[in-house]
Amino acid sequence: MTTITGFEVHDVRFPTAAAGDGSDSINRGDYSATYVTLSTDAGVTGTGFTFTNGQGNEITCDCVRALAPLVVGRSIEELTAEPPRALTAHPQLRWIGPEKGALHMATGAVVNAIWDARAKVAGKPMWQLLAELPTDELVSCVDFRHIDDALTPAEAAAILDKGRDGLDDRLAQLRADGFPSYTTSVGWLGYPDDKVRALSRQAYAEGWRAMKMKVGGPIEDDLRRAAIIRAEIGPDSLLMMDANQIWGVDEAIANMTRLAEFDPYWIEEPTHPDDVLGHARIQRAVAPIRVATGEVAANRVIFKQLLQAEAIGVMQVDACRVAGIPEVLAELLLAAKFGVPVCPHAGGVGLCELVQHLAIFDYLRVGTSLDGRMVEYVDHLHEHFTDPVRTRDGRYLVPELPGYSSDLRPESIAEFSFPGGPAWN
Amino acid sequence: MTTITGFEVHDVRFPTAAAGDGSDSINRGDYSATYVTLSTDAGVTGTGFTFTNGQGNEITCDCVRALAPLVVGRSIEELTAEPPRALTAHPQLRWIGPEKGALHMATGAVVNAIWDARAKVAGKPMWQLLAELPTDELVSCVDFRHIDDALTPAEAAAILDKGRDGLDDRLAQLRADGFPSYTTSVGWLGYPDDKVRALSRQAYAEGWRAMKMKVGGPIEDDLRRAAIIRAEIGPDSLLMMDANQIWGVDEAIANMTRLAEFDPYWIEEPTHPDDVLGHARIQRAVAPIRVATGEVAANRVIFKQLLQAEAIGVMQVDACRVAGIPEVLAELLLAAKFGVPVCPHAGGVGLCELVQHLAIFDYLRVGTSLDGRMVEYVDHLHEHFTDPVRTRDGRYLVPELPGYSSDLRPESIAEFSFPGGPAWN
Repeated sequence: MTTITGFEVHDVRFPTAAAGDGSDSINRGDYSATYVTLSTDAGVTGTGFTFTNGQGNEITCDCVRALAPLVVGRSIEELTAEPPRALTAHPQLRWIGPEKGALHMATGAVVNAIWDARAKVAGKPMWQLLAELPTDELVSCVDFRHIDDALTPAEAAAILDKGRDGLDDRLAQLRADGFPSYTTSVGWLGYPDDKVRALSRQAYAEGWRAMKMKVGGPIEDDLRRAAIIRAEIGPDSLLMMDANQIWGVDEAIANMTRLAEFDPYWIEEPTHPDDVLGHARIQRAVAPIRVATGEVAANRVIFKQLLQAEAIGVMQVDACRVAGIPEVLAELLLAAKFGVPVCPHAGGVGLCELVQHLAIFDYLRVGTSLDGRMVEYVDHLHEHFTDPVRTRDGRYLVPELPGYSSDLRPESIAEFSFPGGPAWN
Repeated sequence: MTTITGFEVHDVRFPTAAAGDGSDSINRGDYSATYVTLSTDAGVTGTGFTFTNGQGNEITCDCVRALAPLVVGRSIEELTAEPPRALTAHPQLRWIGPEKGALHMATGAVVNAIWDARAKVAGKPMWQLLAELPTDELVSCVDFRHIDDALTPAEAAAILDKGRDGLDDRLAQLRADGFPSYTTSVGWLGYPDDKVRALSRQAYAEGWRAMKMKVGGPIEDDLRRAAIIRAEIGPDSLLMMDANQIWGVDEAIANMTRLAEFDPYWIEEPTHPDDVLGHARIQRAVAPIRVATGEVAANRVIFKQLLQAEAIGVMQVDACRVAGIPEVLAELLLAAKFGVPVCPHAGGVGLCELVQHLAIFDYLRVGTSLDGRMVEYVDHLHEHFTDPVRTRDGRYLVPELPGYSSDLRPESIAEFSFPGGPAWN
């Protein structure tokens, strides 16, 4: 047994807003992490974080201070053997969610730190820990409350059991070829046309054949930028579009009707993330263009409905907006049940580092297919992690170090701590 | 013009958990308020709060500290003339919502304090300020983004224009008779059977003909308690049931099939508050029992969908979980458009004080009917307010003092401030 003996939380912020990196129709952020460390009596330190956009990171840090004491003194074996209801269903804290917003994001940071500690104790990267776990252990950590009308524990077990077939072959293939990905670095809304053109050309030259642009500005600007990118990447590359929730339902349908000229592969976050019925209407109207969403989907109940309503053609799980590994597992299982491919949300701070593990595990044991699967890639801030992602020819290489690749370098924490770090003076 | 010159926030908590007051299948709370005061150059102080369940109130207080500086230095006239996107769509803070959870609840506190200041400057109770506003001013403050597929500004204006017809007659009637209400004080889950029986008998003797009990414990307990209450209140009183989200969708249907024997008027929060499709399935299965929800519905987008999906027969708006007066106005207008009665959520700390204004305004200018309308009443903590609700024979009397009835007594703030107040020593 490994017992959690204490915690620390760090408010770490990178000053990205000034350059327009990450800018879109809704957000202009200083990419930030609410970074949690859990010390243990086994000597390993579990780390976890949730990604935020700058201001507000102090609030998710405060949420961690409310939640982390609930796990100190408990063992990681016990905590990972069941759904984290001590955190998600606390009889007082739950009220300021429930299971959504700042508190739920902080829950994700804490739960992921527990699981990171478990993977480090086991000496395995997270994808491997999960892929090798017995089916009943995986099923036991999932909270089926409020999703069992769509996925029962028995159905989940059947998916995970079936996922054992051919697992070794899939792993060998991944180690040889890497995991498919796409890049979002070409078309941030804050970039001028010349920069978009140059970045698109460069990405194509580097081997990328799937790229994402931001839309949701004036429609004439979106059309012009789409034309620039499509001209650079040719007719056979995939072009994804991302509206970051700015549109109303009718507006999304009208705008995508015009942007269809540039053959978008998907439209991401066409409207408000809570609007299941709206996404369903948009999906029916814009098909065969796929609707994609999930980076700010609050929890497994929202994902359940998006699938039940046939509202999405691509499911974009986020590693740390929901309550960590167990809730992401619920979402991967739901996607497998409904036959929708998962393309995790990444970028931000460290999201690429996390979701590579999820995508690999999904391929090995849950979804078991690469058809339509791609992990987002954004070329920012990887240098601050001790086990950064590695890519080759537009594909992620399999991470091999123990844990969830979530450790920030100590010198980066010191430099970018807010507001006291040198970067903020 | 009245300019906001500063703000204060107080973490106020009442030790209610020990007595089992407010206990249900999910919550056992110390009823608390994140209490905001906005000073102005007109001399009036606007007050607003969001209700929380104890732990976590420090987090919503921190959210206020992030949000309130965004309105200091601005005028209440300017701030109430448009949707509060400075708070709800901040390019960095929005990420930790969006429009949900702790940040959105704090937004409600700040926005309501602005509107309270406006009502005080006008020298009118909130219901009157709103009922007398020109239609275009009411429409201008509503954020139609993400709901305009269900309600356009023109449709909203038509509802509000029509609401002028007969307004004076309805007001005279309310002043004579009061507003219908129901009591939730009889059946908290933490109360033993004898206490439930005694409180039901007492409430009936006091004139209450509509009462709510908590369900969601072991079903045999729920059945036994329902039998006790129904025996005390007779076949003609309304008995509402409230599961506080504990059930799954199939479980809710199965349990309500058994509880139907006691002729429930509605089942409130049968499942997870984000589960629009689940509520719709339950509503179809349990009709003619009405499904009611809303006290933790995150925002107008959730309410829009509940109405679009015909998932509810009763809409329970909350005054301060959403972004204050303008978002509640959006929800009242949506309910009117879809023909669903609004029965606001109350109880907690000061919620009765707030929602009486909303129900009266809804009757005067929006829904214009009392059919199926009742305001929740809980007999707790009113003594801490300077303008507490007044009831007679199970009906709310019309409040007549300027503002939103949201001022806490200074001595109550001092006594119950957390953690330093004498009540917590």
